[in-house]
Amino acid sequence: MKKFKKKDYPVSDVRRFLEPGPTVLVSSAYKGEQNIMTMGWHTILEFTPSLIGCMITSANYSFGLIDKSGECVINIPTRDISKTVVSIGNCSGADTDKFKKFRLTAQQAEKVKAPLIEECFANFECRIHDRKLIKTYNFFIFEVVKAHVAPSPKYPETIHYRGNSIFMVSGKNIRLPSGK
Amino acid sequence: MKKFKKKDYPVSDVRRFLEPGPTVLVSSAYKGEQNIMTMGWHTILEFTPSLIGCMITSANYSFGLIDKSGECVINIPTRDISKTVVSIGNCSGADTDKFKKFRLTAQQAEKVKAPLIEECFANFECRIHDRKLIKTYNFFIFEVVKAHVAPSPKYPETIHYRGNSIFMVSGKNIRLPSGK
Repeated sequence: MKKFKKKDYPVSDVRRFLEPGPTVLVSSAYKGEQNIMTMGWHTILEFTPSLIGCMITSANYSFGLIDKSGECVINIPTRDISKTVVSIGNCSGADTDKFKKFRLTAQQAEKVKAPLIEECFANFECRIHDRKLIKTYNFFIFEVVKAHVAPSPKYPETIHYRGNSIFMVSGKNIRLPSGK
Repeated sequence: MKKFKKKDYPVSDVRRFLEPGPTVLVSSAYKGEQNIMTMGWHTILEFTPSLIGCMITSANYSFGLIDKSGECVINIPTRDISKTVVSIGNCSGADTDKFKKFRLTAQQAEKVKAPLIEECFANFECRIHDRKLIKTYNFFIFEVVKAHVAPSPKYPETIHYRGNSIFMVSGKNIRLPSGK
């Protein structure tokens, strides 16, 4: 699997990669354990501070690691590893070392203990910013405290889940004069 | 502009259209006024009840109409009307009748007073479900109380905002065996 060489990226600009709605991989760590989960329910909430809201079901093994450590990394995979992304979502960290099983490389992050996934083209280091909706909706509000993005390709192919085992692959780009 | 003939759609399945991350149009009404805004910051939160979280800046004229009426309609536009979608985002309902200016058809909804936009292929009637994060984050949690979707085409081309005036157009679909 291809590893991406990344550069520092402004945290206030992560919307460029998340707003289009890709399926992402969330990595987490707590007391020597680490895990990865597949996630599709997320939204940008603010540019500065750089806030992201994510629905992470408490049934996920990652829920506990993220809740207790207060941290995670949001990694954006490309279409090349889409089968791996789906397989990660179909097994549990309770009985599987997913980094080992799927031969993914856990790279040390800068500001959090959760690992970056080197085979993803972007990694956003996150800390929990607001816990208010975790109990009611399993909804975490994270602040992106550090962002790493591969400078090339500029627009990697991402996958976007439609449900029922169907993913939309990101298509071409069009320019339309817009305010923001 | 093409009008879409729609059928009733299960509210628990609206994720099929929203989870891929399209830019949507939010229509609202309050005391005889109505408006449309362009929105890209949304996420599915739950299947049943059918919950959607949306960030709607208080600077938007629509914010007041939605906040006071407690309702809105989330409409999904196709690429055909992408220029209109962007133009709607670049002007304000404070001084513009957007239905008139952009020649869109306001159709009566079934369960809310906010109008459906007939030129969009899907319309989701929403009521505010939880106001807890409106003040802090301008984050509305809506329940979809009625959904209308055009049965054809099955996968209309949608637009997905990358920031900086660039939109990604939804590409082809791939099937990957997935749990949900």
